[in-house]
Amino acid sequence: MAGNEFDLINRYFKAQPVSRKDVVLGIGDDAAVMTMPESSQLVVTTDTLVAGNHFLLDADPMKVAHKALASNLSDLAAMGAIPAWCSLALTMPSSDEVWLKSFCDGFYKLAEYYHVQLIGGDTTKGPLSITITLQGFIPSGKAICRHGASAGDWLYVTGTLGDSAAGLDVILRDNTPSNDIENTLLHRHYYSTPRVLAGQSLRDIASSALDISDGLIADLKHILKASDVSAVVNADQLPLSDELLQYAGSREAAAKLALCSGEEYELCFTVPESHRGALDAALTHTNTPITCIGQIRHGEGLNVMWEGKQVDWSLSGWDHFSA
Amino acid sequence: MAGNEFDLINRYFKAQPVSRKDVVLGIGDDAAVMTMPESSQLVVTTDTLVAGNHFLLDADPMKVAHKALASNLSDLAAMGAIPAWCSLALTMPSSDEVWLKSFCDGFYKLAEYYHVQLIGGDTTKGPLSITITLQGFIPSGKAICRHGASAGDWLYVTGTLGDSAAGLDVILRDNTPSNDIENTLLHRHYYSTPRVLAGQSLRDIASSALDISDGLIADLKHILKASDVSAVVNADQLPLSDELLQYAGSREAAAKLALCSGEEYELCFTVPESHRGALDAALTHTNTPITCIGQIRHGEGLNVMWEGKQVDWSLSGWDHFSA
Repeated sequence: MAGNEFDLINRYFKAQPVSRKDVVLGIGDDAAVMTMPESSQLVVTTDTLVAGNHFLLDADPMKVAHKALASNLSDLAAMGAIPAWCSLALTMPSSDEVWLKSFCDGFYKLAEYYHVQLIGGDTTKGPLSITITLQGFIPSGKAICRHGASAGDWLYVTGTLGDSAAGLDVILRDNTPSNDIENTLLHRHYYSTPRVLAGQSLRDIASSALDISDGLIADLKHILKASDVSAVVNADQLPLSDELLQYAGSREAAAKLALCSGEEYELCFTVPESHRGALDAALTHTNTPITCIGQIRHGEGLNVMWEGKQVDWSLSGWDHFSA
Repeated sequence: MAGNEFDLINRYFKAQPVSRKDVVLGIGDDAAVMTMPESSQLVVTTDTLVAGNHFLLDADPMKVAHKALASNLSDLAAMGAIPAWCSLALTMPSSDEVWLKSFCDGFYKLAEYYHVQLIGGDTTKGPLSITITLQGFIPSGKAICRHGASAGDWLYVTGTLGDSAAGLDVILRDNTPSNDIENTLLHRHYYSTPRVLAGQSLRDIASSALDISDGLIADLKHILKASDVSAVVNADQLPLSDELLQYAGSREAAAKLALCSGEEYELCFTVPESHRGALDAALTHTNTPITCIGQIRHGEGLNVMWEGKQVDWSLSGWDHFSA
């Protein structure tokens, strides 16, 4: 990239659709300078996507860009934070401008929607990989953490679960959707919606939250461990899309996919009984569907129930989907 | 890395020597949360090192870690900022704990010195590369930028120049230093000192600044372009170490290395005549040697002088050293 790194930066990264007033100094100096809002705390997250591991080498760069930024946005969403600025470290085998143009289209489309300005990064030569560090802020003391769940809290998830796993299944099979249902699932795998507004609405309501990037079962365990509690999950109450039900063939098969689906970027959160009344009202304006799927208990472990009975499903499949 | 990613994070990254009071939530949640000091602006920089490009695949991981963090610290230094927090995105072919232990030793040694806390990141499987995003802060409005140089300002550099290029020359030749001089140059290549305190001292004195990561000639042009000015550089006044003079064989050969040496992480800055008196006093407590090497002029371009006469040296060599 030596020689035309600065051309690439000028062409693709300096000229971007988002321009925030709180960015004092953007791309083009040794570092970027930003103004923080008063009485706010800084929230920072980083995610890397490696070609051949997190996406196929010939994957559509627009989809890769969406996934890279969406996974970071989802992390801030889970804290209840407001995304603001991001850095992009892009490593490419060569300066492929066709790839880069398409990547930027996908990247800026999502960045514009959430008003996130690219403030810097690094463009280097090497095996294709993308690291994004996203920064945002939150009113001081309002971050939703993983360690706040208590026995008795109700367990919720946003959206529907399992579609992303089914979409990945389509990709890994032959990458060619054979009908509308598979097409929809594929789209859901690639174009997840980070729950940014829902996360912000949960700030004074949820006792804990995280985003489901490694699958519900795997990620929920982080809340349980951090909060030193256990949980009951009613697998028959999991929110499942019609497409998933048709693809999976049975409610049970669909529920198993929903328990393990990674890269879905829905939120999983806990709400104390006393805040349950405020929950629906708070989320109404974000138009985010939520479903109560269980409850937090004392003790350790995670009990999966099906129609009132504890089940012992082999859920090792989730490893397959984890990044 | 699936399966033991969390073990690695707990063992190497959660347990670190730096613990800052302004980190409300560190490693272990969806994102980190930090408190910003009042009346400050946030300063952010990102650098990637790719194995086989920025360092040899079998390079000492301790040195790689130093270089990765030092190059970021140097960027904040050039803004006059105070480093505070960093994210580490580490991609490794396998979870090589011997490599990781040594990498962390180098990383934490430098992080501890500058009181920088690791607040998050990502550990992924793939070709070896390291992306660090470093964050710090600066009193509002005090960042030193590249666009502030004016005709008449004096041009300075910190430390000595050229040692890193000579050290790289030793590495590329046979990687075995044959005497004390080569040993010293090699050490200077690997263990550059980011000029963090010097940068902070320059806040109300320098009109522009940047760090020399691609070589003086290449980087100075960024100041000239951003400030819309030209410069005269007296190459015979460049600060050269005794080791470099002996290695290069002549003052002229040494000066050419000094003009092009990349990855040196010294600061290049401009100072108005009116602030020249305050300069020495301001830098005394940081014990940083500085040298006036030229002056900013009206117009365009960069004129390199040798004993009062303009020279037209072929300085294309610098590309070789640029990352």
